Amino acid sequence: MALEQTAELSLTHSEPQVQNRLSMVVFSGDMDRLMAAFIIATGAAASGMEVTMFFTFWGLQAIKKRTSTGRSLFGRMLSVFLKDITGVGPSKMNFGGLGRWMFKKMMKAHNVTPLPELRKLAAELGVRMLACQMSMEVMEIRREDLIDEVQDVVGVATFLEEASRSKITLFI
Amino acid sequence: MALEQTAELSLTHSEPQVQNRLSMVVFSGDMDRLMAAFIIATGAAASGMEVTMFFTFWGLQAIKKRTSTGRSLFGRMLSVFLKDITGVGPSKMNFGGLGRWMFKKMMKAHNVTPLPELRKLAAELGVRMLACQMSMEVMEIRREDLIDEVQDVVGVATFLEEASRSKITLFI
Amino acid sequence: MALEQTAELSLTHSEPQVQNRLSMVVFSGDMDRLMAAFIIATGAAASGMEVTMFFTFWGLQAIKKRTSTGRSLFGRMLSVFLKDITGVGPSKMNFGGLGRWMFKKMMKAHNVTPLPELRKLAAELGVRMLACQMSMEVMEIRREDLIDEVQDVVGVATFLEEASRSKITLFI
Repeated sequence: MALEQTAELSLTHSEPQVQNRLSMVVFSGDMDRLMAAFIIATGAAASGMEVTMFFTFWGLQAIKKRTSTGRSLFGRMLSVFLKDITGVGPSKMNFGGLGRWMFKKMMKAHNVTPLPELRKLAAELGVRMLACQMSMEVMEIRREDLIDEVQDVVGVATFLEEASRSKITLFI
Repeated sequence: MALEQTAELSLTHSEPQVQNRLSMVVFSGDMDRLMAAFIIATGAAASGMEVTMFFTFWGLQAIKKRTSTGRSLFGRMLSVFLKDITGVGPSKMNFGGLGRWMFKKMMKAHNVTPLPELRKLAAELGVRMLACQMSMEVMEIRREDLIDEVQDVVGVATFLEEASRSKITLFI
Repeated sequence: MALEQTAELSLTHSEPQVQNRLSMVVFSGDMDRLMAAFIIATGAAASGMEVTMFFTFWGLQAIKKRTSTGRSLFGRMLSVFLKDITGVGPSKMNFGGLGRWMFKKMMKAHNVTPLPELRKLAAELGVRMLACQMSMEVMEIRREDLIDEVQDVVGVATFLEEASRSKITLFI
């Protein structure tokens, strides 16, 4: 599959120029890392940068609807553990959900925009949200399991093309 | 808050040139990731690069004094778990502090500069250490809870400006 | 050691140009993050980019032979926990090895190239695999403990030189 995906890639025959552009791989599905990802993405977009977020593996939780996924036994087992953006917990001190609740409280107390609103803001600011085809297949998540704001389901080649002409590329 | 912070951003009206510069977001507070961050930062600074470290979320532990923090109940609860740079443990195999002790022993046995000295070296080499305002507010960490070497408390806009004119940008 | 390593660095007296090049620090030894690293690396190499992977800390497991390592007591204790590329588990839901087995099954069911084959493909596509000298010393891993495909054992300076002339740099 890695090879098939690269077939669509065409980095060499063009000369992509570095543009006022930021791209990121959102690999993590932790609440705190997703906060960082969306704060950077919305901050960059608000300042006029072109921003692309490429969601892969656990990061798919950030763009998933609150629905069950999976066809096979394993896929349905995995689905039990996958959350949507309102359900993800922090990478440290989750304590079975207590930490998630506590961080939400603390963010609210200090007027920090919560994750679902940050994602909405990102869409409004024109941040491109792309989903990784291969991880969707492995995790048995279909296009219709993702929110409508997701613009496309793509392979690694698309990410590489974006990143090649970006000033800033992050793996989160 | 994300929107307020971007108000100070001015990426579009100037044309920042890529310079001999490295910037990093230090999101993690794990001993091993902090080692990697400071080794890259001091290595780059020693070679003549301009280096900026932007500490956020758990990464704030790397620039925190060994004091209690927090005003609210949640803030004081969180403070119990926050360490300073001498107390952080590795991301794997901590075993309740045993791993931290073991890694320190192994690094000492192989003459690797320990974290507190690496941080001191970074300051001496002119590495700019910046703290993320928003995470400080959420975690109820005040400026006076941070070490004096921290040059400024800034928003995401400052990071984006630095990163836009950097050759290398890392999210650690 | 950080200082010694930077002595070999020579970023300032030359003017490295940005080239069609991707470099990454592979810090993590988690199965899922290694999948992402090798998929990006092989995708980029297949499209004509020059790719360098710099393996450090837990990432060394991806290029380790299936042998015991360590000389000191601590080194041999650590060795018990270090895996090779066939033994690493996912960052989430490992459940004592069950998750690893399940993800392998799911990847196989969806025709995703497994990690050992991805690494082989990377070598065939000319991806440069470098090992971090300092982490090898701390973890007591010798050159002969690493697979033959590893081209060199290097310091942070080599990584910085590569990254300085890369379009894309990732920390995974």
